[in-house]
Amino acid sequence: MGNFSYRAWFQPVGGFFAARALEAGGSFFFAEEECARGLRLYEREDLQVSFAINEALPSEGFEIKGAAGGVKIEGGCESGLLYGTYALLSRIGRGEGTVGWSFSQKPAVSMRVLNHWDNGDGSVERGYSGNSLFWRDGKIGYDLPRLRDYARLLASVGINQISVNNVNVRLLTAKLLTDEGLVDLAKVAEVFRPFGIRLIIAVHFDSPVWLGGLETSDPACEKVATFWRETVARVYKKIPDLAGFLVKADSEFQSGPNAFGHTQDIGANVIARALAPHGGTLYWRCFIYNCMQDWRDTKTDRPMAAYDTFFPLDGKFDDNVILQVKHGPSDFQVREPNSPLLGAMKHTREALEFQISQEYTGQQKDLYAWAVQWEEILDAPFDENRATRELIGREVKAVIAVANTGDDENWCGHLLAQANLFAFGRMAWNPAITAREVTEEWATLTFGRFTAEAESGFEKTLENPATVSSVTKMILDSRHVYEKYNAPLGICWMVYVHHHYGPSPDGYEYTPWGTYHRADHVAIGVDRTRNGTGYTAQYQPFVRDLYENIDTCPQELLLYFHRLAYDFRLKDGRTLIQYIYDTHFEGVEGVEKFIATWESLKPDLPADAYESVRERLAQQLKNALEWRDVINSYFYRKSGIADEKGRMIYT
Amino acid sequence: MGNFSYRAWFQPVGGFFAARALEAGGSFFFAEEECARGLRLYEREDLQVSFAINEALPSEGFEIKGAAGGVKIEGGCESGLLYGTYALLSRIGRGEGTVGWSFSQKPAVSMRVLNHWDNGDGSVERGYSGNSLFWRDGKIGYDLPRLRDYARLLASVGINQISVNNVNVRLLTAKLLTDEGLVDLAKVAEVFRPFGIRLIIAVHFDSPVWLGGLETSDPACEKVATFWRETVARVYKKIPDLAGFLVKADSEFQSGPNAFGHTQDIGANVIARALAPHGGTLYWRCFIYNCMQDWRDTKTDRPMAAYDTFFPLDGKFDDNVILQVKHGPSDFQVREPNSPLLGAMKHTREALEFQISQEYTGQQKDLYAWAVQWEEILDAPFDENRATRELIGREVKAVIAVANTGDDENWCGHLLAQANLFAFGRMAWNPAITAREVTEEWATLTFGRFTAEAESGFEKTLENPATVSSVTKMILDSRHVYEKYNAPLGICWMVYVHHHYGPSPDGYEYTPWGTYHRADHVAIGVDRTRNGTGYTAQYQPFVRDLYENIDTCPQELLLYFHRLAYDFRLKDGRTLIQYIYDTHFEGVEGVEKFIATWESLKPDLPADAYESVRERLAQQLKNALEWRDVINSYFYRKSGIADEKGRMIYT
Repeated sequence: MGNFSYRAWFQPVGGFFAARALEAGGSFFFAEEECARGLRLYEREDLQVSFAINEALPSEGFEIKGAAGGVKIEGGCESGLLYGTYALLSRIGRGEGTVGWSFSQKPAVSMRVLNHWDNGDGSVERGYSGNSLFWRDGKIGYDLPRLRDYARLLASVGINQISVNNVNVRLLTAKLLTDEGLVDLAKVAEVFRPFGIRLIIAVHFDSPVWLGGLETSDPACEKVATFWRETVARVYKKIPDLAGFLVKADSEFQSGPNAFGHTQDIGANVIARALAPHGGTLYWRCFIYNCMQDWRDTKTDRPMAAYDTFFPLDGKFDDNVILQVKHGPSDFQVREPNSPLLGAMKHTREALEFQISQEYTGQQKDLYAWAVQWEEILDAPFDENRATRELIGREVKAVIAVANTGDDENWCGHLLAQANLFAFGRMAWNPAITAREVTEEWATLTFGRFTAEAESGFEKTLENPATVSSVTKMILDSRHVYEKYNAPLGICWMVYVHHHYGPSPDGYEYTPWGTYHRADHVAIGVDRTRNGTGYTAQYQPFVRDLYENIDTCPQELLLYFHRLAYDFRLKDGRTLIQYIYDTHFEGVEGVEKFIATWESLKPDLPADAYESVRERLAQQLKNALEWRDVINSYFYRKSGIADEKGRMIYT
Repeated sequence: MGNFSYRAWFQPVGGFFAARALEAGGSFFFAEEECARGLRLYEREDLQVSFAINEALPSEGFEIKGAAGGVKIEGGCESGLLYGTYALLSRIGRGEGTVGWSFSQKPAVSMRVLNHWDNGDGSVERGYSGNSLFWRDGKIGYDLPRLRDYARLLASVGINQISVNNVNVRLLTAKLLTDEGLVDLAKVAEVFRPFGIRLIIAVHFDSPVWLGGLETSDPACEKVATFWRETVARVYKKIPDLAGFLVKADSEFQSGPNAFGHTQDIGANVIARALAPHGGTLYWRCFIYNCMQDWRDTKTDRPMAAYDTFFPLDGKFDDNVILQVKHGPSDFQVREPNSPLLGAMKHTREALEFQISQEYTGQQKDLYAWAVQWEEILDAPFDENRATRELIGREVKAVIAVANTGDDENWCGHLLAQANLFAFGRMAWNPAITAREVTEEWATLTFGRFTAEAESGFEKTLENPATVSSVTKMILDSRHVYEKYNAPLGICWMVYVHHHYGPSPDGYEYTPWGTYHRADHVAIGVDRTRNGTGYTAQYQPFVRDLYENIDTCPQELLLYFHRLAYDFRLKDGRTLIQYIYDTHFEGVEGVEKFIATWESLKPDLPADAYESVRERLAQQLKNALEWRDVINSYFYRKSGIADEKGRMIYT
């Protein structure tokens, strides 16, 4: 225990950080201790660092000044000192000097949250990195040194809230609210507290029945309100700094206020009012849709569901409710427009939810850069004046993501998938940072100092810039490479039902999940304009018009909004079908390039890191070939239109 | 325990038969006791029945003579007396007199076998009737009175061998061969022995490694041969009348001789030679194919696999090996031709394997008469001189089926699915019996005597002949009704992968299972003639020519053997696509008729039986509607050809 050899930023082989016990606990001195530890890691014990709280700075903000005599870190609070410390270490870790360096930062948003979808039995829903870091055999059960290392990873990129149980709450994790569960959870809180990370509990809407012995969970029932008040009071006695609760209600067979004939605000507010006196936040997920749809029904359009459900309730939610909105209206697909609900509610606080776990984007077998997609999402217009990025810190009060971590030695299954966890924290802190910047940062911290000769040590200067730039390029390219061999132009969902890996073009076509492309021998897609389901009307007028019009709709979203014939001409003159064939061949070529790049880096990489990624890339190539051939065959069989370039398409 | 209210032939509500202990044990007196019990059931205690062994009769055969003074049953052995007894009870149970009745029978084949696919944890693979009757929590564990009732059900239709563990042997059931396992199994053998039923053990090919501590299971290794010899000797000490072993080797990830570079005969013979001195039979399954096929590969044709594997080995198997051949070359699909391997091997003993469990035929939610399909299979020509039926008792030495039973109160999940278990036993005994005869027998024994007024008692005469004939008609119609709404004309496999219920037309299309229809916008099917994969050449010349030629190929198998355009004209002038639309609308109408029929029978049926079947029929209607609409939409989308009758096809 505690003798890990995982490899991650700030986590050299051998578990340097993990070796020492951590007793300071949430004090001023903790930043100092973290700093000293980091400087030892980089053999910079000579550097003098002083710390001071400066209440004039924003909370969690910091200011660093480097001079010949040393570095001074000022923080708006203790967490600010810690973030300043990690910023300093990151600079040193990337081989930069500190003399004459001056730097100040504050987070764009005060809630930077990770949701773990960990089950009580130790499994992780949509987890591709081993088992839970928090749960074993039905109870909280963790490896303390490893959990501290995890806390450090999260804090070092600015994450300050986490939930440790799945939003699909089942009985085992529902019991977190019992006295026994709280004793266990309080121990987890203790581990994360010095790192400035507070806990959230995912709770079941039916807790009043499951745990309170009541006959109903009806939020309008006074006994239910009393249950929540008493329960929350009990919780806060054990964990006074708890960030709040998280609820997935009326969604995918989970209970909720609808079951009792109430709207969402009624369900949320009864819990929020119990949390309010303790300063707790209620995160209320907006992932609500009809998951028992009849595929024959062409009027119901699943992407419209969240907006239809929540927008009419604007202003009805209590102040400490945050509506947690997935970035897109579908479900973390490789390509979808932004959710029209984001920023739409002027009198309701919202959170933007990402998924770091690669549920539909290669499951950490395939390389996939979420940062690139997130940048696109943030760049996308909210209206004629603002990019979506500018909602953050205003309408959007929290940035949240589903974690991609587990007890695999490299945390994320795929070593390079760490870049996604890193990027999430950095982009939640600073949405203006680019995917390139954040990926370079990660690649430098992780691979920048290794050489084949000095695997276990750390060099003072960046000895292998080519490795860093190659790895960065691979990662940055990976989102579009993956998209190329996946379902085309925003079609989504061409995966195997339930497990969500590998191509099954009609897999979701006749299911109750509301996920249809309705491809026939002539055309594919659902018309979501005013002539079709009318979904576009949910957007701000500027964006609505953009998507509504086939000429202004971004090409990559064409099939999300429009039904098009296979011989439809794209702007570059290619037909839609030819575009599909071309991109699918290119996708495979992209993976082949990754492999060639990676193999060329072998001399510069530690052997274990090289091998583990090489193995994943080989799996990815197999997957990409399968996607290419299945998708191409599917469309060829449907359309009968041959590839203009005469490449192999299986009949 | 023992206080069942299940309803089945010879098993009135209240568990009459189950109430008394069974001690006689395999003796002459057992038939007498069974007879007395049965006569009490029918309130015919007045009937004088005498018993005598007559060694001039065939083993298991019997002769019954009824006169005014009573009935005389002679049997070729004790089992013959028992079968005679059940034949007498069946006659009485169907309201027939016995005076002047004379009747003799012998089974067409001496091995009439049921394979249970029961797992050690109590689950049943492809079981749709609750949990195992034999296994609980990793060990043999049963309800004794119930198991006796089960033995009676099986013996009453002539089944004389059963295996009680899954052919996919896992560690729990592999342990049947240990001393501890054998003690448990010997107890099961005791229950079944008086009913003339012997046990078979499904064994794992790697038992020498799993249980014997050897480093290999290589059948050419002398230590492995010794392991099998010693193990079999140990087994026969505990269960001296064991019928033999059953092995699924080199199939769907199970180990086998191929793994050691040997052909199937080498693997089979080493075990068979261990069994031979004890009179044991080795059942060796022929369900071998490449389950990791590349869908792009159009040369490999899964239906050819069993013949290709086994035919060249004709004559190489020891005499006590029986090759267990599934009736069709695919996998118990709703429509497939007979396996070309059946009867092809002149120097090798074969078994014909059916499936009573409705894996691909409605999973006991949908009504499905296997008897009708089995009759078609037996009617189908083996060559120009013989129907397949005539192989039985000649090339085919055993008739075997996968059971459809479990611990559901009505044994089979769907009450009417009992007719399939009944029919299997009766048709294995006498392959010349028609589906109509056997179904009427079952319906009369099960429903013939009930009236709404006297639910718990038994009437002396058939009071509701209309009910019996309506139920019989429903069951007889059900095979073709199901086929109509399923995949058309022998296409097979249009089901959800793995769980095998509900329509997923492309579900298996890009999988590694070797199950492809390759539908495009013009045509569907795989050409299996000499112009295609060449599969037809595996048949006897007469049958080969029949299937080879599109004009002589039976219409219902057209798409099994030929690739046809959607506008291909069938003999009645309809296009293929129109036939698909028509049959799918008719299939739903068929289910609607079942419901109307069943509802009309309500006054004549016990309430519990009525309700349980009505509920299943409602599920079936939902399933049929789903099949109809998905299949029709699938083909409409592919072909763009409209229904001539303008009915609703969803686009």
